[in-house]
Amino acid sequence: MKTRHILFTTLILCSLSLVAQVKTEKWKIFELTLNGPTDGNPFTDVKLTGQFINASDTISVPGFYDGDGAYKIRFMPQKEGEWLYQTVSNVKKLDKKKGSFLCTSALKDNHGPVEVKNTYYFAYADGTPHNSFGTTCYGWVHQGDSLAEATIKTLSKGYFNKMRMCIFPKSYDWNHNDPKFYPFEGTPPKDWNFSRFNPAFFRNIEKRIKQLDSLGIQADLIVFHPYDRWGFSTMNRTTDDLYIDYIIARFAAYKNVWWSMANEYDFMKEKTLNDWNHYIERFAKNDKFHHLIGIHNGSIIFDHTNPYITHASIQGEDTYKAKEYRNKYKKPVVFDECRYEGNIPWSWGNLTAQSMTEKFWRGFTNGGFVGHGETYVTENPIKLPEVSSDVLWWSKGGNLKGESPERIKFLRKIIESAPPYLKPIPLFTWMPFSCIGIDHEFYLGYLNDAQPRSVVIDLPKDASYKVEIIDTWNMTIKPLEKVFTGRSLIELPAKPYIALRIVKQ
Amino acid sequence: MKTRHILFTTLILCSLSLVAQVKTEKWKIFELTLNGPTDGNPFTDVKLTGQFINASDTISVPGFYDGDGAYKIRFMPQKEGEWLYQTVSNVKKLDKKKGSFLCTSALKDNHGPVEVKNTYYFAYADGTPHNSFGTTCYGWVHQGDSLAEATIKTLSKGYFNKMRMCIFPKSYDWNHNDPKFYPFEGTPPKDWNFSRFNPAFFRNIEKRIKQLDSLGIQADLIVFHPYDRWGFSTMNRTTDDLYIDYIIARFAAYKNVWWSMANEYDFMKEKTLNDWNHYIERFAKNDKFHHLIGIHNGSIIFDHTNPYITHASIQGEDTYKAKEYRNKYKKPVVFDECRYEGNIPWSWGNLTAQSMTEKFWRGFTNGGFVGHGETYVTENPIKLPEVSSDVLWWSKGGNLKGESPERIKFLRKIIESAPPYLKPIPLFTWMPFSCIGIDHEFYLGYLNDAQPRSVVIDLPKDASYKVEIIDTWNMTIKPLEKVFTGRSLIELPAKPYIALRIVKQ
Repeated sequence: MKTRHILFTTLILCSLSLVAQVKTEKWKIFELTLNGPTDGNPFTDVKLTGQFINASDTISVPGFYDGDGAYKIRFMPQKEGEWLYQTVSNVKKLDKKKGSFLCTSALKDNHGPVEVKNTYYFAYADGTPHNSFGTTCYGWVHQGDSLAEATIKTLSKGYFNKMRMCIFPKSYDWNHNDPKFYPFEGTPPKDWNFSRFNPAFFRNIEKRIKQLDSLGIQADLIVFHPYDRWGFSTMNRTTDDLYIDYIIARFAAYKNVWWSMANEYDFMKEKTLNDWNHYIERFAKNDKFHHLIGIHNGSIIFDHTNPYITHASIQGEDTYKAKEYRNKYKKPVVFDECRYEGNIPWSWGNLTAQSMTEKFWRGFTNGGFVGHGETYVTENPIKLPEVSSDVLWWSKGGNLKGESPERIKFLRKIIESAPPYLKPIPLFTWMPFSCIGIDHEFYLGYLNDAQPRSVVIDLPKDASYKVEIIDTWNMTIKPLEKVFTGRSLIELPAKPYIALRIVKQ
Repeated sequence: MKTRHILFTTLILCSLSLVAQVKTEKWKIFELTLNGPTDGNPFTDVKLTGQFINASDTISVPGFYDGDGAYKIRFMPQKEGEWLYQTVSNVKKLDKKKGSFLCTSALKDNHGPVEVKNTYYFAYADGTPHNSFGTTCYGWVHQGDSLAEATIKTLSKGYFNKMRMCIFPKSYDWNHNDPKFYPFEGTPPKDWNFSRFNPAFFRNIEKRIKQLDSLGIQADLIVFHPYDRWGFSTMNRTTDDLYIDYIIARFAAYKNVWWSMANEYDFMKEKTLNDWNHYIERFAKNDKFHHLIGIHNGSIIFDHTNPYITHASIQGEDTYKAKEYRNKYKKPVVFDECRYEGNIPWSWGNLTAQSMTEKFWRGFTNGGFVGHGETYVTENPIKLPEVSSDVLWWSKGGNLKGESPERIKFLRKIIESAPPYLKPIPLFTWMPFSCIGIDHEFYLGYLNDAQPRSVVIDLPKDASYKVEIIDTWNMTIKPLEKVFTGRSLIELPAKPYIALRIVKQ
């Protein structure tokens, strides 16, 4: 501690010579750019670290080469006040650069990064609860500006607060076009210099991460995925590690970043469980801002008890199992994929809007979080998936065509206006109806696609309760005049997709 | 063999003295009535057996006391031609009664009892395939004539060919009325002489079994069930056996009888697995007409590998698991309960008509059979289930209010007009779509509640196929003009509940 204190004092004195103090808002990015060598391989030859120091912490973050002789260090200050820094490098020109900045308080709408809260939940660093309402556009950053801007415009409508997106481009049905940028220097399809990154590729992604952040949307970055024709899914461990370190250096200072190790890890046959645990640990140790870490399955759910995994990222269509997975993993449960609203031939992409909406309600009322995706083909005449280049939201983004997003937004408003950290409560006698709430205070129950004309609920006898009937499909909320207590027969409209909000008077 | 042949010849000679030969149609009932003692306990003191003999078989069936001094023996001849009989009794007046009748050929619409065929299927004794389309009215025989006749009228509309029904009366939500008859002599609710049956109770059931048979409907008789306030679910082994023997003696000659050991065997906590296996074996050994034997679960599926069990009678809402249970049990799979169409608060009874219909399609297109039930409350004002006396089809019968029966009838026509004994075929690349058929010849596929605008199917390349689009909800069948072969993109109406019928040209 003593050494660090002396260092801090020294740096303070050095910084006094600065006239205008640089200011960085809490949880935003302080970026230092230095000029350095362009010869050799700047990506692998040059070591650069920034040490950021305030009265209580010293945080070392890696720098990275951004091309054209520019070396950058990005830092997200998480405490207000004076921060000093100095660089450490094996290149003299980059070494021992010192300076300071003032971390100012967060402005409105800046709540900081999302963290795990109370075992099963998320909250922003400032304590504001975060309920995850995700969507999925795997390859949207690879489609060029015009489509990306359309995607951003769609996202600005406030349906979602998380975007699941691949770093590497995607090759799959309906996805045969080439990406605008490639991550490595070289020539497509497979002639890459895996030790030299293409900064333009990453700058393009950063631009989109920033846009998402400005809309309050988390960027759930998928590090690896199997849908590949360029060899990015079968790189060796050395290249994978180089790539991981590079994206940590570039992206980790963005407060809205989540790390998703994979889309469908188990479909990547070249990688072993040992590989995945290695990557997970690498992110946990090298990302000094400790962003959320998940790993998403195809058929076989990963062992989410791994302590470096922050939340269970699940592919599975039975979102009511959120409760089961909560109990199993003791972590937040996010159904990142539970089939998509759409009309494609593959059965994971032809849910009705009703089913997609229902999966959200089932997941949330069992204590989990759910992600959306949309797969509508619109081309005429229709083509086989292997030759079609239709624009499907699930991969390319663009415009939403479905009817679930409005309903998801409706649910989001209900969840966000409810007390935080609702837990599963067995309010209904018969499964599979589900309910979350706070005992004796608040209940949000959901009756699936069933059509009961009434429900019978044993409410606490020592209080009285107001009941609202929520039509989750038609997005109406109807308060009942009567007040209920004890064993209650509550009349319902006898149609599917009904929920109940019950609040103690 | 020699002794039997002499006996047969002797009996033939005896019968020559008869002037007018009695005739009984194959698989119908020859009934012999004898007068005997009324003193003591005719139900337990008197032993009476009928031996029925033709050129190749001797079949001994038990007689029973039908009250008022009348003893009866019922026999269902399964072979045409001359049958002789003689009685054996411990009462002289009932012993050594001899006679004969001529078993004539079955008339149209009489196909005999249903048997297991080709491991996974049912057929009538005359070889006609039987596809089981059941419904459920647990307590309909206990509601009196007016409601029972309404039930029969409803059943005459041809939706169903099996009725799941309890022998003992039912006490449960919406079922608080007393039955018209009780099975034992005594005084309700609990003062019974368990060694003396009430013949009127059983005659009433026989009347209904006969009415069902006249409509071509199997009577799936439930021997025990837990929903009881009279003590019939907790009788001892001796009484249970007496009761079983009595119903075998009375009911087994009815060709449309199936034996279901229980509704929800595992909810009858007083009975052990040993008890159930004993009952199953007793039916298998004492019923000389070898009717189908099943046992239906609540939560825990019975071990249907028991060789006396003829088919797997399943309660479970996931009817697509028919394929899984076929493989597991190597028997016909009947989803006798997969939740019911209705609007009651309990979640097993508030399916939409769409969901009920869908469960039928999913079950059948996975190689199983499915049963219907309906639970609509209609009373105004609505009451708590524990005090309501509303008439719900599922228990009391009456009129159907739902929309699934017409759709089930539509499916039934499609199944009955298809080639028999269709097996599950993985026609679709992606689960959970399902298909049954005959390889290269015929396919019946179902796309659930998904809304694909197209399906991609790899049909055999060496033949061409006609495709029909079936809207299972709107009950339309639309043939496509184009003929398909090999990898085929088939356009669909992009809405739920679509099936495909594909037939080789």
